[in-house]
Amino acid sequence: MTAPPHQSRSRTPDTQQGMRRRNLSRVMYTLAAEGPLSRAAVASRIGLTRAAVSTLVDELLRSGMLEELGPERPGRVGRPGSALGVSGSGPAGLGAEIGVDHLAVCVVDLRGQVRTRAERQVGNRGRDPRSVVRDLAALLRRAAIEATAEELRPAGLSVAVPGLVGRDRGTVVRAPNLDWHDIELPALLSELMPDEMPKALPVAVENEANLGALAELWLGEDTPGDFVHVSAEIGIGAAVVVDGRLLRGTRGFAGELGHVPVRPDGPACPCGSHGCLEQYAGEEAVLRTAGLESGAHARELLAERAAAGDKRVRDALHTAGTALGVALTGAVNLLDPRLVVLGGALAPLAPWLLPAAEEELARRGASPAHGIAVSRFGSQGPLLGAAHAVVRSVLDDPAGTSATI
Amino acid sequence: MTAPPHQSRSRTPDTQQGMRRRNLSRVMYTLAAEGPLSRAAVASRIGLTRAAVSTLVDELLRSGMLEELGPERPGRVGRPGSALGVSGSGPAGLGAEIGVDHLAVCVVDLRGQVRTRAERQVGNRGRDPRSVVRDLAALLRRAAIEATAEELRPAGLSVAVPGLVGRDRGTVVRAPNLDWHDIELPALLSELMPDEMPKALPVAVENEANLGALAELWLGEDTPGDFVHVSAEIGIGAAVVVDGRLLRGTRGFAGELGHVPVRPDGPACPCGSHGCLEQYAGEEAVLRTAGLESGAHARELLAERAAAGDKRVRDALHTAGTALGVALTGAVNLLDPRLVVLGGALAPLAPWLLPAAEEELARRGASPAHGIAVSRFGSQGPLLGAAHAVVRSVLDDPAGTSATI
Repeated sequence: MTAPPHQSRSRTPDTQQGMRRRNLSRVMYTLAAEGPLSRAAVASRIGLTRAAVSTLVDELLRSGMLEELGPERPGRVGRPGSALGVSGSGPAGLGAEIGVDHLAVCVVDLRGQVRTRAERQVGNRGRDPRSVVRDLAALLRRAAIEATAEELRPAGLSVAVPGLVGRDRGTVVRAPNLDWHDIELPALLSELMPDEMPKALPVAVENEANLGALAELWLGEDTPGDFVHVSAEIGIGAAVVVDGRLLRGTRGFAGELGHVPVRPDGPACPCGSHGCLEQYAGEEAVLRTAGLESGAHARELLAERAAAGDKRVRDALHTAGTALGVALTGAVNLLDPRLVVLGGALAPLAPWLLPAAEEELARRGASPAHGIAVSRFGSQGPLLGAAHAVVRSVLDDPAGTSATI
Repeated sequence: MTAPPHQSRSRTPDTQQGMRRRNLSRVMYTLAAEGPLSRAAVASRIGLTRAAVSTLVDELLRSGMLEELGPERPGRVGRPGSALGVSGSGPAGLGAEIGVDHLAVCVVDLRGQVRTRAERQVGNRGRDPRSVVRDLAALLRRAAIEATAEELRPAGLSVAVPGLVGRDRGTVVRAPNLDWHDIELPALLSELMPDEMPKALPVAVENEANLGALAELWLGEDTPGDFVHVSAEIGIGAAVVVDGRLLRGTRGFAGELGHVPVRPDGPACPCGSHGCLEQYAGEEAVLRTAGLESGAHARELLAERAAAGDKRVRDALHTAGTALGVALTGAVNLLDPRLVVLGGALAPLAPWLLPAAEEELARRGASPAHGIAVSRFGSQGPLLGAAHAVVRSVLDDPAGTSATI
């Protein structure tokens, strides 16, 4: 768990006070990644004096973000120091997900452990946003009660949605599969927020593909800082990570791989264009080619049938994989990512999508430097990404957090 | 001329010494953008005390990067301060360009003024890199002599090439229109560098489309920090700028718009793929459709004929513009840039390319937030970008530069 380049720096001005806040962040990230460690070990890792680190650590102990774990285990050279670790109580990340077919929330502590999780299957397509948020608030209430029992205090709420979110990180501009347009989600949430939740909880809304990609960036093993993350719920989403940072785009709409033209004169797409990737590799297109009905468990059915050797299903996934390869050829030529990651609902279909996509990329001389990998988070990615986004905002500026909670 | 976010920060560690170097950079950028200014005015703009700014200014005056311009003009409130300005002598940027049909060099001072420029028409396609570099060295010698006469000292050399450059910013991995592969340009340059040039001059090599985009970013009026810059010499190149930074890609190959598939089963491309944008909008494709022969002045001929109303040429450019619109639809969906800029050799063809490209983007619901603009630098962009890249490396770390020259 390393800090993205400059992320903590960008928040605070270049003053003595700003330097102190950035150094607090470095202590937290170092202990989150490598702890437990003594003060001396932290000092040597971040290149500050032991005295400077002690002052920073005292502040972090007082605000409950670190804890003293007692003497280091013997066998090390030198006088044993007291080991420090990131606290398992105190500020925590609260993540939520509004899916087409479900709602979910989870709480992650500063150590990165999922401490509580609640989910509810519910069809949200075309439902009034207020009643969806009311159901979500009930789950949030449960999570808040459980968090309090474990001495955890949510430092913020991040909500994953299957749609385009404005740069304000609040407005759901367009979520076609929910049939939502211009919904001010934070206002609705604050109105319906349960009493158990801290007052004035900061809320951020984020596209689910973006959060899935961030989960991969932050939690994946050996995930590089440059990759394209392709996922799907009903449509096809993607997120672009460059130099360890999510590329959001001017309006917040970057990563719309599903509307990259595969054949300029192909079938009409609800977006107004023709021959978009979604018309070849979106869930409905694949089900149609496979001769299956769409419905709540259509994706599971696709994976089952393909695993059982159903030729029509396998052919449909091969066709989708080829179209994905054409769209990814454009992405690789424009972005030159190190890796492409198949995540979300596409991960379980990877055994049949991946070979066709890889073949198409290779045929077009556009294989990413490190090929295509399959996410190990699958459909859990967006929710994990949401909770960890809050955790990282705490690690990025521990002083800012302790002042507001 | 504002510093890109974090650029000066990223070079130096977060220590007192690093802070001093970053503040020196801020003083330089402030005076480059808004000078002449008094010490007090600089202090208020960058949020430091006047005493702190005076210390920084003294150091920059000693190293010859700033100059004292005498008392400010009267009529202002308060005691008149002495106005400071960026020096018109001392460290300077040396840029060079290796084109398919020409070589060029120029020297730009810290104020951003082009002080000397030399160009030679010469067909470089298929020529031995050593003899090309020998011709370039002769131009560099002229530029060095003229720079010395004007008390300018090149602080580095940046070379624009029409091909893919590795992340080492030295190896020309592939320049198909020169027929160069894996050429270590800095080694050749250092071997053939004229004696008039400073010893151990830092050399960086860069793709010409990237430097054209940087010229647009740094010198364009109202150019936003997020755009896709499309240019052409023989092939079609592009560069992606995100948050004021060039997106280079893992291998340095980002921005290859010319090989985004427009029709997956279209004509074979020398890159190994089929239906790439270059097969519809590259110079050879357009000339073929227009019924014209390729040759040294083919592009000028296209513009002339189109201006004269030649229907076949206009139709060919319309077809090319439509294909460009399809490829850009992919780019806009993936990147959500604020603007697309047509630059390089495409700029003079814009009156006939642009309407078709805009129409296609609109039809596909993929118009960039601020549409498509035409670069005012045209084919001068890469050379200007090269010289300014060196100027900015000086402004980014004035202390580093004064130590090495």
